[in-house]
Amino acid sequence: MASDPLIVNLAPTGMVPMRADTPHVPLTTAEILADVERCAEAGVAIVHVHARRPDGTPSQDPDDVAPIVEGIRAIDPELIVCVSCSGRIEPSLEARAAVLDLDGAARPDMASLTLGSNNFLRQASVNAPDVVLGLARRMRERGIRPELEAFEPGMLAWGAHLAERGEIEGPHYANILLGNPGTAPLLPATLAAFLAVAPPDTTWALGGIGRFQLDATMLAIAAGGHVRVGLEDNIWLDRDRTTLATNAALVGRVAQLAALAERPLATPAQARERLGLPLAVPR
Amino acid sequence: MASDPLIVNLAPTGMVPMRADTPHVPLTTAEILADVERCAEAGVAIVHVHARRPDGTPSQDPDDVAPIVEGIRAIDPELIVCVSCSGRIEPSLEARAAVLDLDGAARPDMASLTLGSNNFLRQASVNAPDVVLGLARRMRERGIRPELEAFEPGMLAWGAHLAERGEIEGPHYANILLGNPGTAPLLPATLAAFLAVAPPDTTWALGGIGRFQLDATMLAIAAGGHVRVGLEDNIWLDRDRTTLATNAALVGRVAQLAALAERPLATPAQARERLGLPLAVPR
Repeated sequence: MASDPLIVNLAPTGMVPMRADTPHVPLTTAEILADVERCAEAGVAIVHVHARRPDGTPSQDPDDVAPIVEGIRAIDPELIVCVSCSGRIEPSLEARAAVLDLDGAARPDMASLTLGSNNFLRQASVNAPDVVLGLARRMRERGIRPELEAFEPGMLAWGAHLAERGEIEGPHYANILLGNPGTAPLLPATLAAFLAVAPPDTTWALGGIGRFQLDATMLAIAAGGHVRVGLEDNIWLDRDRTTLATNAALVGRVAQLAALAERPLATPAQARERLGLPLAVPR
Repeated sequence: MASDPLIVNLAPTGMVPMRADTPHVPLTTAEILADVERCAEAGVAIVHVHARRPDGTPSQDPDDVAPIVEGIRAIDPELIVCVSCSGRIEPSLEARAAVLDLDGAARPDMASLTLGSNNFLRQASVNAPDVVLGLARRMRERGIRPELEAFEPGMLAWGAHLAERGEIEGPHYANILLGNPGTAPLLPATLAAFLAVAPPDTTWALGGIGRFQLDATMLAIAAGGHVRVGLEDNIWLDRDRTTLATNAALVGRVAQLAALAERPLATPAQARERLGLPLAVPR
């Protein structure tokens, strides 16, 4: 298991880091695509896309998301593109589902499906059961695979419940996000709880929030999981927070760790095969 | 550890079960006090109080809660009384904190402090960080011990964070609630995750939601924990849901299990000693 090709999921932008926090966070379409190109060369297979408005604030407007998805297709049509259906800006189903209607080369392969509600450091993140179900159904209708997002074991257990009821279809891919203040910390015992409740046939990745990103990467590589990495979750390169990271440096370190662990990086095509995802734009 | 006296926390009423669901749920002050009296004889040490309005809907009005607390003091002044600060009716801090100002014989020993946000079956339960902190501070000012309530490991980890910062003071008592649809299921791995993150010096109890109440009781008794039981979480006596439970029957079964496990039931005085809670109304 621990010699499986490692699927690296790049989360380059997110909704939180701003230009004032770090000069390296890519905000415009051009900046995001430049980072994706560098990180694809370094071994990324999945890109988790967030768009920003011209002032840097997050946008879920499909018109802002489309050029990023199309640009990634132009870089490498094998790259798996996952769009965000986050509720941080606007919790309503319609606002969050709009990106699922993107079509042609802008159609995403995957979309994030946060499986419940939890607290972040300063506010609650509300994903009520009817909104989660509504997003799941919209994804299924559109043939878009959910990127299951869980901050707590019970959220992933809810994914298993949706899978059992046929509301989501596998092979499943889950991002287990550890180290957010207010939700599950990064510990073997918490990882064990997530893995005990994951839907069958789940390819799981760990993402570490802030200072936990490096440890999450190492734990995932060691335990046969996969990795989510990028400035969305963590803007620092070192534990002492003296050096601001770039997406390429973060991915480069994952690649070094994977090489030392004798886990080859999964190519986008290998990741597509494992997740049963056909090419979005047939050659 | 597993021979520790077992502290039984009775949750007789809650906010959800109505007369139409079961004839046995105590709703009026007189009904609640009659159940508390029976269950105190059967070995309960803590009572987790919710009040209802005349139409059966939940109330957080201190005027509705006071006679219940006073009535429990009259039954046995050693019984530990915990009032609910739930946000299910009204999420605002002021509405939830009003019961903390009850005085004299109506002053509670403990009050519930839900440590984060999560989903229930049909809606989100929102306890934003500022509200959690506000309630914790109000409890500390009033000398009321928080009953830490956690549906997920990260919520209990937030309790440890508050303890480390001195916002809550021990000895800590935590209710770990397992089996709610949408949050942590009842499994050894999930229990391990909760116990790995609990604040130091925590007396922990398990409560099982619905059909998980019996298993939660057994797991807690076996693992050296304590028990929360009552119609608030579960209205059925048997696994097949053919017989509606009473609070006294549920407590009676806990007592039988504890006897077989050679764990004596903690008297209210023993529970007060363990939790460092002086008598609310000096003799």
